[in-house]
Amino acid sequence: MRRIKLIVEYEGTNYAGWQRQENALAVQQVLETALYHVTGETVTMTGAGRTDAGVHALGQCVHFDTNCGIEDKKISYALNAHLPSDIRVRHAVAVENDFHARFSATGKQYEYHIHHSAHASAIYRNFRWHVYVPLELERMQKCAEYLVGEHDFAAFMSTGSEVKDTVRTIHTAKVTGSGDEVIMQFSGNGFLYNMVRIMVGTLVQVGAKKLPIKVISNMLETGNRALGGPTAPPHGLILTEVFYQTAKKS
Amino acid sequence: MRRIKLIVEYEGTNYAGWQRQENALAVQQVLETALYHVTGETVTMTGAGRTDAGVHALGQCVHFDTNCGIEDKKISYALNAHLPSDIRVRHAVAVENDFHARFSATGKQYEYHIHHSAHASAIYRNFRWHVYVPLELERMQKCAEYLVGEHDFAAFMSTGSEVKDTVRTIHTAKVTGSGDEVIMQFSGNGFLYNMVRIMVGTLVQVGAKKLPIKVISNMLETGNRALGGPTAPPHGLILTEVFYQTAKKS
Repeated sequence: MRRIKLIVEYEGTNYAGWQRQENALAVQQVLETALYHVTGETVTMTGAGRTDAGVHALGQCVHFDTNCGIEDKKISYALNAHLPSDIRVRHAVAVENDFHARFSATGKQYEYHIHHSAHASAIYRNFRWHVYVPLELERMQKCAEYLVGEHDFAAFMSTGSEVKDTVRTIHTAKVTGSGDEVIMQFSGNGFLYNMVRIMVGTLVQVGAKKLPIKVISNMLETGNRALGGPTAPPHGLILTEVFYQTAKKS
Repeated sequence: MRRIKLIVEYEGTNYAGWQRQENALAVQQVLETALYHVTGETVTMTGAGRTDAGVHALGQCVHFDTNCGIEDKKISYALNAHLPSDIRVRHAVAVENDFHARFSATGKQYEYHIHHSAHASAIYRNFRWHVYVPLELERMQKCAEYLVGEHDFAAFMSTGSEVKDTVRTIHTAKVTGSGDEVIMQFSGNGFLYNMVRIMVGTLVQVGAKKLPIKVISNMLETGNRALGGPTAPPHGLILTEVFYQTAKKS
């Protein structure tokens, strides 16, 4: 038995998210089906992040166990031959048997893309949230800095999550603009359900001067979700990288 | 009667190109139909560049005449309300009656995007040509410089074109790489049919060391299309901007 770690890229537009579901097609199911076609094995794959419907990934990490004889390096080619073009395995490598895509992860990095223009973008419509109100990026950047550090992010979690420990450490929270694109980059040791999208929705309200800069501190202190902005839509979000302590290559 | 100039963005994936056709849906037809829904007028629109099927545009320029009473600024909003999300009017402005999207153009700028990696990209699959062979970017850049200037580009034109004067001036031809993306940018006073895609296909063969750097000079001297590389696929190409002598605003 070998444990394999995959790095997977996907466009989330046509999927119900990462996690296998009853009545909708998820990325996990498509990958497991491709593996079945390659090895004949019925295997459960574990992803590092349970991305929502419409959310994309450049660097989702996945692990699974296999008894197949295919060379490590060839697994990505074999899987890609059976995957639709909006899901690609970028890398496959054998890892130690105690490696776990989710529990071994020491952190994650997300990007959120905004199309800041009077009209929506045709080309980037599935990858950028269209925001047409004036935004002050410096205001947003100043506000984002309050997110950095170890805090109780209870106010940055959508209801429906069963997570009890809502303390997380954010390493970076950056807002940059280039032309009609605004990119927000967040990295941290973990993210609560919808945490990035609530941070983005709140930062946009701050940039639009509909919320004060101190809203972040207020939310962190009170744990009150209602103080923040709306949850930003999923299609601007992309899971760019998952971090692990050591690259456990075979 | 007012002449209106539009700046139009589209993803070419689902269209048979810019120009109206008998048995396939073209961007021109979709725009003309949207205008009919807005104004009730049956109008022919003229585009600056006849982009092929699968080719994208960030800055296609279009002109048409209208007797409608809609304020200039509101035309883009009105058209976008009747357009599919993969076509967007970015800007609309009234221009002089002798303005012509194609004949008044003094130049154009194109970008070509390559996904340079072992595996194709899921997210950028409709916007980047997947090239997996090793490429020497410096070799490509050195080679691209030979394109700059006034030359007879007869060897850089696909058969089927009725153009007789094949002399064009290329202002810039740049090759840059960032991560697994290679971007080629070309600007010039005009481009022959498939000219950018033949330049790209040839530069890639040079980067892969399958053609010598002097291939460009040889092609320019002999006018022999057969010396170059294959025509690069359409989906990596994007018409980014059309240049005009003066911005003729009303």
